[in-house]
Amino acid sequence: MSLIKVGVIGIGNMGRSHVRALSEGKIKGAILTAICDPFQNELESIIGQDNVKIFRDEDDFFNTSVFDAVLISTPHYDHPRLAMKAFAKGLHVLIEKPAGVYTKDVAEMNLAAKESGKVFGIMYNQRCNPIYQKLRELILSGELGEIKRTNWIITDWYRSQSYYDSSEWRATWQGEGGGVLLNQAPHQLDLWQWTTGLMPKKVHAFCSYGKYHDIEVEDDLTAYVEYENGATGVFITSTGEAPGTNRFEITGDRGKLVVENSKLTFHRLTQSEREFNATYTGGFGRPECWTIDIPIKGRHTEHQGIMQNWIDSITKGTPLLAPGEEGIKGLEISNAIYLSSWLKEPVELPIDAELFYEKLQEKIRNSTFQKRAVGKVNLDVSGTH
Amino acid sequence: MSLIKVGVIGIGNMGRSHVRALSEGKIKGAILTAICDPFQNELESIIGQDNVKIFRDEDDFFNTSVFDAVLISTPHYDHPRLAMKAFAKGLHVLIEKPAGVYTKDVAEMNLAAKESGKVFGIMYNQRCNPIYQKLRELILSGELGEIKRTNWIITDWYRSQSYYDSSEWRATWQGEGGGVLLNQAPHQLDLWQWTTGLMPKKVHAFCSYGKYHDIEVEDDLTAYVEYENGATGVFITSTGEAPGTNRFEITGDRGKLVVENSKLTFHRLTQSEREFNATYTGGFGRPECWTIDIPIKGRHTEHQGIMQNWIDSITKGTPLLAPGEEGIKGLEISNAIYLSSWLKEPVELPIDAELFYEKLQEKIRNSTFQKRAVGKVNLDVSGTH
Repeated sequence: MSLIKVGVIGIGNMGRSHVRALSEGKIKGAILTAICDPFQNELESIIGQDNVKIFRDEDDFFNTSVFDAVLISTPHYDHPRLAMKAFAKGLHVLIEKPAGVYTKDVAEMNLAAKESGKVFGIMYNQRCNPIYQKLRELILSGELGEIKRTNWIITDWYRSQSYYDSSEWRATWQGEGGGVLLNQAPHQLDLWQWTTGLMPKKVHAFCSYGKYHDIEVEDDLTAYVEYENGATGVFITSTGEAPGTNRFEITGDRGKLVVENSKLTFHRLTQSEREFNATYTGGFGRPECWTIDIPIKGRHTEHQGIMQNWIDSITKGTPLLAPGEEGIKGLEISNAIYLSSWLKEPVELPIDAELFYEKLQEKIRNSTFQKRAVGKVNLDVSGTH
Repeated sequence: MSLIKVGVIGIGNMGRSHVRALSEGKIKGAILTAICDPFQNELESIIGQDNVKIFRDEDDFFNTSVFDAVLISTPHYDHPRLAMKAFAKGLHVLIEKPAGVYTKDVAEMNLAAKESGKVFGIMYNQRCNPIYQKLRELILSGELGEIKRTNWIITDWYRSQSYYDSSEWRATWQGEGGGVLLNQAPHQLDLWQWTTGLMPKKVHAFCSYGKYHDIEVEDDLTAYVEYENGATGVFITSTGEAPGTNRFEITGDRGKLVVENSKLTFHRLTQSEREFNATYTGGFGRPECWTIDIPIKGRHTEHQGIMQNWIDSITKGTPLLAPGEEGIKGLEISNAIYLSSWLKEPVELPIDAELFYEKLQEKIRNSTFQKRAVGKVNLDVSGTH
């Protein structure tokens, strides 16, 4: 079978890492043929192989026919626009997360993807983590019973001021469209709905802007949500806490699942709580509960896992682990969190995408924030997501 | 030294347990001399000693001079009224938690206590738990640094329907004035502020009424709070989850403290996070953190610890661990949670006590709830609080 020729556009921290994986042959069935970045210097030095075309201009990049598939790892705003360009050229597409900054154009991108019939993936590499795959299996199979409450404290996204100072676009309304919600937490926003199979129907959120850093966007927030079935949830994230916490708890009719410290624990009731509640007559007392360490099989294949799955989907029709169209779900939650914080009231999902877009444009127009002298550090992303 | 003669009024589940401790001589320096309850039968059988007078009428009880000090373990509404009666008689007072149902009359009780000059305690027995004492010490000594966030998931207050059916007054606006906030969670509401030294300044809360039980009051809620210093907090409690969680996390400038599974863990930074943030230049990177199992010394003396401390305060001037006047703090948070939920908006502390009182009266007036046939089970409270 011939190799799928891949172009990569956006050679920042993540793009470099993806280029390296491709050029080192770590993705079976794929070959790197072109890269494009208008801003980064010394692109030659990072490709590590011959026969890779280097472009500065995105139109030149898309107008060549040296690749069948494109990986988009530019700043967030450009994901939908570039993906639509790629679909128009008949290319398969893999976008970095988040799907975009606002659902308005992400919905357009999804439509273009559908019409193109091409393979469209999103770099939700945390879906390759077997612990979340197992969590999802236990919930969607009904083992946990009907969900009562979800709670994710994901505050281990610590970033120092020097991180924010490393790029002009970072943590600005204009350049990135937001902070921790768009840059660090998209994985957990996705997993929150992917593992539970539940999207909130109402979001009430409290964001702090530039609380721990000299930035204009949010670096700390708490969101309270309500689901259609009456369950409630809390999502807390921050880049200002050290050492931070990553603890995801889901309560259901048959007990409780907790993911923390790379362990999945199932506190499993031997009978339904609703049934116990209705039939028990002793006053105090609770259903019998078994604490179970759920064995986790398989390896967390991370970004390479998503790239491999995308290539396999192109070449063999393997189902996508993270279909690009699903990127809108986490983004919808993220947009709802902002909107609730800006309007200071709860918002229902699906949100008013036009209203969100307008409010975001206001933030951009009214921004008076001056970035510090930018360090232009090439950050080492090993160990990040 | 002569023994302090103690009367106990309110001989329900908790009252019985206190009477037992007193009559078995477990409280040094105290002797049980009278009990009073207008409703309970077979009071004789529970005293377990001679020379204890039994009263049905509270005025007869207060008009005797057979005790110097009174322990009030009636339903919540009566705590302030009876405490004020006791202060007027020149008695020392220990009240069960919560201090009352609304801060309006609790403030009056506090004033009466102050004017009386008598020893006034509240049964916040969890303050005897050495783990929370140590937690408080680590925070108030400055070891944790300035607090950034608090988070208490205290959902291990599971109760079945039969519990709620066991008494007429339980879980009604008229009889109890509320649900989990007034009956189960007052300890954690107190510890939340006592261990951190912080009262919220703003509360935004989401209560569910009769969500998991056939009751008219709340059995599940999430509260989001903001503190004066900019810190935020979340408090989640429920009587509808099994097995439930009891996990209290406090993040500060010097790391994180977590109380869970009867363990206190200090994730201690070797330098201030704020200092690291300002001086670190490497982009990604975080302050060095040591994970420390904090040794817990001493024994959790529970209700007897509070009773002993109250008696010691009367006889020897020992400082109270849980001064009665502090009962208003947790109740203020509790009232604020209701008020926010009823008004569907954030409320500032101190709350409008008159408004809360009026709203509560509305709930009582408008109640159409019919209690199920009441079982009149005498619940075994061993292991509860």
